[in-house]
Amino acid sequence: MIDLYYWPSIPGRGEYVRLVLEAGGLAYRDVARLGEDEGGGLEAMFAFLQGRRGAPVPFAPPFLVDGDLVVSQTALCCAHAAAKGGLLPEREADRTFALSIALTGEDFVREIHDTHHPIAVSLTYENQRPEAARRASDFRDNRLPKFLIWYENLIENNEDAAGWLVGPRMTYVDLGLYQTCRGLAHAFPNAFDRAMGEAPQVGALCRAVAAHPAIAAYRESPRALPFTDGIFRHYDELDPPSAA
Amino acid sequence: MIDLYYWPSIPGRGEYVRLVLEAGGLAYRDVARLGEDEGGGLEAMFAFLQGRRGAPVPFAPPFLVDGDLVVSQTALCCAHAAAKGGLLPEREADRTFALSIALTGEDFVREIHDTHHPIAVSLTYENQRPEAARRASDFRDNRLPKFLIWYENLIENNEDAAGWLVGPRMTYVDLGLYQTCRGLAHAFPNAFDRAMGEAPQVGALCRAVAAHPAIAAYRESPRALPFTDGIFRHYDELDPPSAA
Repeated sequence: MIDLYYWPSIPGRGEYVRLVLEAGGLAYRDVARLGEDEGGGLEAMFAFLQGRRGAPVPFAPPFLVDGDLVVSQTALCCAHAAAKGGLLPEREADRTFALSIALTGEDFVREIHDTHHPIAVSLTYENQRPEAARRASDFRDNRLPKFLIWYENLIENNEDAAGWLVGPRMTYVDLGLYQTCRGLAHAFPNAFDRAMGEAPQVGALCRAVAAHPAIAAYRESPRALPFTDGIFRHYDELDPPSAA
Repeated sequence: MIDLYYWPSIPGRGEYVRLVLEAGGLAYRDVARLGEDEGGGLEAMFAFLQGRRGAPVPFAPPFLVDGDLVVSQTALCCAHAAAKGGLLPEREADRTFALSIALTGEDFVREIHDTHHPIAVSLTYENQRPEAARRASDFRDNRLPKFLIWYENLIENNEDAAGWLVGPRMTYVDLGLYQTCRGLAHAFPNAFDRAMGEAPQVGALCRAVAAHPAIAAYRESPRALPFTDGIFRHYDELDPPSAA
């Protein structure tokens, strides 16, 4: 049994880990979403973050507790679950590159988050709207296409020619790209649609992940939370219908 | 021989990798700083980033090329060099936690960078000064102390009680913390000095790293570049002398 610790009310970064746990068919507990009578709740998460469970102390959620191992940072949690669930690439060089893809994906997610929080995570969106408008404009015009074209080229240049980012079959980094694209379709439907015109293989990859039986079943389950006020947020004013 | 690829004119993120290579006593070439007659220069780096050297294609520097392996993302480059240079922790649980420390350090570095570039990396600082002032204020008051106290607690709670972040001896994550503190002392001398009042063990760790013979020799060498306009930049207006 693997314990996942993450904020209980948003998909957020925890969702990247959940998808790997689900696709890998692993038994896990989503601790902060359990009741306190089951040893869960936010208090159980804070006990770790405040050091009351001893070393090592993660800086922030998500983190996994698997026996004696505490794994923090989203990409490492995903790689750990992937190793247990058969979702790592087989070749060592591919595994190394997959982890760098997962980390670059984290950079992308952070940039997406910062479009609505460019100044401080401790302030609301309403307290940084002009700055968000400037940052989102640069994101739509420069960063979003740059990341999506990089992913498109990885699929295009995959020597196994299988439609995935690395190697001949679906791995955890494909799950990550799928989740990021879901989030972008929610947050920036107009800009994402324009950028995806240049990334048809990213689109095909996302459809293939969505059709994976374990992922399709998860999406229909009550375990899957809707996007609300986490990383991926939609504000009309940050996503105009046409590129001016 | 390991090839490091990074921008030739700034310490930047490449410096984290260089410190591990230097402390590990590894033979390496700093490719973009070599002449084109030695197979170096920026052109050699762009050949990789534009896919002309084939897969895998990193998203951005720094990256390492070591035989058939291409390693990108700063923390992974550091971990790779550390494995070769004897600077990884010995216990598996410590290695896992060390990599999460390295990645959290990357988050910290990104937040430091964004104090002078909160809107877009493609714009100059002068084009985002009001936003930088707001972001730097939150960084000085909230984020800087939060990260430094987390590091302080890691050292404090290290079961080996040795003054390092993980385990009984210096590892690559100690080198990373040292470099980040050097950068902070350059960029935010006033705020850093105030925050370090609460983090005496971080200070002691940094002095111990600086006294390491290979690091001390490196600092005196022409290979070590001064801070200029990379991640760590000093602007008087972003670092007032007293906490108002």
